[in-house]
Amino acid sequence: MHVVDINCDLGEGFGGHRKVVDEKILDYITSANIACGFHAGDPTTIRKTIQLALEKKVEIGAHPSLPDFMGFGRRNMDISPQEAYDMVVYQTGALKALVETQGGRLHHVKPHGALYNMAVQDKALSDALAAAVYDVHSELILFGLSGSELIAAGEKIGLKTAGEVFSDRTYQDDGSLTPRSDEEALIKDYETAVQQVIQMIKENVVTSINYKKVPIKAETICIHGDGEYALSFAKEIHETLTKAGILQKAVYSDI
Amino acid sequence: MHVVDINCDLGEGFGGHRKVVDEKILDYITSANIACGFHAGDPTTIRKTIQLALEKKVEIGAHPSLPDFMGFGRRNMDISPQEAYDMVVYQTGALKALVETQGGRLHHVKPHGALYNMAVQDKALSDALAAAVYDVHSELILFGLSGSELIAAGEKIGLKTAGEVFSDRTYQDDGSLTPRSDEEALIKDYETAVQQVIQMIKENVVTSINYKKVPIKAETICIHGDGEYALSFAKEIHETLTKAGILQKAVYSDI
Amino acid sequence: MHVVDINCDLGEGFGGHRKVVDEKILDYITSANIACGFHAGDPTTIRKTIQLALEKKVEIGAHPSLPDFMGFGRRNMDISPQEAYDMVVYQTGALKALVETQGGRLHHVKPHGALYNMAVQDKALSDALAAAVYDVHSELILFGLSGSELIAAGEKIGLKTAGEVFSDRTYQDDGSLTPRSDEEALIKDYETAVQQVIQMIKENVVTSINYKKVPIKAETICIHGDGEYALSFAKEIHETLTKAGILQKAVYSDI
Amino acid sequence: MHVVDINCDLGEGFGGHRKVVDEKILDYITSANIACGFHAGDPTTIRKTIQLALEKKVEIGAHPSLPDFMGFGRRNMDISPQEAYDMVVYQTGALKALVETQGGRLHHVKPHGALYNMAVQDKALSDALAAAVYDVHSELILFGLSGSELIAAGEKIGLKTAGEVFSDRTYQDDGSLTPRSDEEALIKDYETAVQQVIQMIKENVVTSINYKKVPIKAETICIHGDGEYALSFAKEIHETLTKAGILQKAVYSDI
Repeated sequence: MHVVDINCDLGEGFGGHRKVVDEKILDYITSANIACGFHAGDPTTIRKTIQLALEKKVEIGAHPSLPDFMGFGRRNMDISPQEAYDMVVYQTGALKALVETQGGRLHHVKPHGALYNMAVQDKALSDALAAAVYDVHSELILFGLSGSELIAAGEKIGLKTAGEVFSDRTYQDDGSLTPRSDEEALIKDYETAVQQVIQMIKENVVTSINYKKVPIKAETICIHGDGEYALSFAKEIHETLTKAGILQKAVYSDI
Repeated sequence: MHVVDINCDLGEGFGGHRKVVDEKILDYITSANIACGFHAGDPTTIRKTIQLALEKKVEIGAHPSLPDFMGFGRRNMDISPQEAYDMVVYQTGALKALVETQGGRLHHVKPHGALYNMAVQDKALSDALAAAVYDVHSELILFGLSGSELIAAGEKIGLKTAGEVFSDRTYQDDGSLTPRSDEEALIKDYETAVQQVIQMIKENVVTSINYKKVPIKAETICIHGDGEYALSFAKEIHETLTKAGILQKAVYSDI
Repeated sequence: MHVVDINCDLGEGFGGHRKVVDEKILDYITSANIACGFHAGDPTTIRKTIQLALEKKVEIGAHPSLPDFMGFGRRNMDISPQEAYDMVVYQTGALKALVETQGGRLHHVKPHGALYNMAVQDKALSDALAAAVYDVHSELILFGLSGSELIAAGEKIGLKTAGEVFSDRTYQDDGSLTPRSDEEALIKDYETAVQQVIQMIKENVVTSINYKKVPIKAETICIHGDGEYALSFAKEIHETLTKAGILQKAVYSDI
Repeated sequence: MHVVDINCDLGEGFGGHRKVVDEKILDYITSANIACGFHAGDPTTIRKTIQLALEKKVEIGAHPSLPDFMGFGRRNMDISPQEAYDMVVYQTGALKALVETQGGRLHHVKPHGALYNMAVQDKALSDALAAAVYDVHSELILFGLSGSELIAAGEKIGLKTAGEVFSDRTYQDDGSLTPRSDEEALIKDYETAVQQVIQMIKENVVTSINYKKVPIKAETICIHGDGEYALSFAKEIHETLTKAGILQKAVYSDI
């Protein structure tokens, strides 16, 4: 049977600064990536989000970021691999402690925003991120873009990994995402998006913008928790995948 | 033989913001309280300070604070016990992960600044802080003002504790510190300061400002790492205590 | 003819952290209090909010806060009057420059959250806040709770002031707000709320929780921009006041 | 007679985070660049530094930065020209208000760290920075690297500018600084440093690392306020320039 993980970023508020994610989305996902305080997520918001995820039996991951609160972690910054290591240990350690005090267990780590994007092609940065995750706990699962240097670095150091794919982004012939600056970058209709996902899961290929079939490993699908239609999209993709015989389950998980 | 711990706050820089602590002070102390990011301490500064402490075989504690970077954690703030719990778990978890990735083991937790002071008399806050420390790891040692509600809360929940005394502060008849607003608050000459400490360690009493002998438990002495004479004071108190037959050793420690 | 100002807090996002205020609320208010960066409001969010307010011919005020991003400026903090002065000059100066570069003119200053509340009864703090506003520009209008020390301090130093009243809060016999901890603090039905406002504007009195008529000066009404019904409430109160013959116009304003 | 401005970064503390600049350096400089809160500088530190500069009759400039507290504004970040504009207006407006409330007048603006460096070659960014300064006050003087795009952008928009040179850095044949990654980047002996400065001021040329004489405009010299020898270096360069008949005076200044 085909299986896939559905992940979503959560806990992205900060004190009075509420981010508009409807927590009902927890009914349709299997892994939650929780902000760790560097782009969002104060300790109380984090703890409450953890409690919700535990109630819904959704696996919990740390979602560490560059230290860029104003830019929501979406701006590239020049940091050294050693600084990246230190930041990811700090944030993952904080999240892990909060999960454990609530009776849970940290499941995975997925870098956020610019840190995630920078790690796609940067080997030294990817090695630092993988080492940070491994050193915090060698059983943590590293989430990264499918086919990225980050996934390669995770495998090399001995971590379990999960290659992430996007339903709403197009792919190029080399399996990389079409840059957002390109007009063809986004898939806007639901049918095409969901067919792309089903093809990736069942056939391990994606059809590129040039109509080539490119091999891809779809272990976890990223869905967005914000935006007007996030909740209905989450529900719909859950139902469509279920009908297509695809089980949704967190990677390497018993729950 | 008489034994006492000597603790000092370290790692209080933040990125380019260097706090003037001479790391040579590590030669004269037995416990280092390392800032956790809320009043000072970015991940890289924390990691470097941990490495220095490990080299010098000084025990490492987390030094969590209120979220008050501009005020260096010295301003009282209205927070709920639950928020205090969440903040201390977050900060202690981050520090613990950084210590462990460097091959060490977190030894203690000492709240910083206003959080420390607020916990002296606030039972609900003290219970929250003690629970946070216990829930992160039940073997951690809780540092607090000797005779404070924080120490009582730590004992109640089952933590090991260390009652802290000050060499440079006078005490009132009830064993509490003379408030800083009072002119008699500070002890300015070295001889009086060191004699007070020796009396507290050897006789378990302190002579109050009204010349009463008040019982006190001196398990750890706080010395300041900043200021012009910090290093020479640290060296001198180390030598005077040693001559007085007082062994300096971290509480409940094998190193 | 009766006249009143309707003010609302705006611009309370921060980078990616969107605060849910529907900008359509600008159609129903006459003064916007814009966050200045200490509890919310990064420079780009501030500038965009200013542009919207200018388009809608709504007067613009600075909304300075305690430096408490995590607590959204709602936590009391121990700061000295001099520190409060410095903070308010900094934030008001930043807002003023952004307004002027967009072709506008700063109209008023309303302290935010805990700073506003602390100034109700604290004379020294109120004097510092009034001096800060006066020193930035002596023609700025100081908004504060009607009858508060802040309004008294503003008048004393020679500022124009605007006494603020609340439609959704009950008042005590001395004209102060019933504390939120009291069950009677909030007015929950629309009719009572709007009748209280109309009475305050037309008769310069409010009926206290003990049914006494207490004198009150209602120069500006605070309405909330967040919450599910904010927009419809704003529209409704605008229409009800208009029907009651009450003109809505920013205080001391030509627009 | 030859004239030059000597500028130095000041006010780079933040609350309890003291940056080690000896304020005596104000005796040897003519322009102070004061941190504005984004890489350092809380309102109270800023105000105190302004007061010192006013006492010493040193001209005051704003020293705006990227929003990177942890990295002390030294890390390149991806920001748009519009965001840069907004940030510089915000920070310069805040500084200007604080200077004016202390009875002074803002004299210049010098971008800090990575923002300064990014503007050397980036025309769009330089145009945005120059526009921000001009829009806050068209009489402000823009400081930038001599020969940089920033200086060109300032001149184009109609600002007075001051081309900055470094005593302790070597120059390449095109008049740009030798990158710090190059071994020849720094001038370490005092004699060479001071002779380079005198040559730049008197002859309007600098001798490149390849021994070419390259034209350069030396209107202001940057000296560093931190480091062990900052104060003695400042004093020495002041005395050497004076002996060489070079008057030290803030650019376009009456004081």
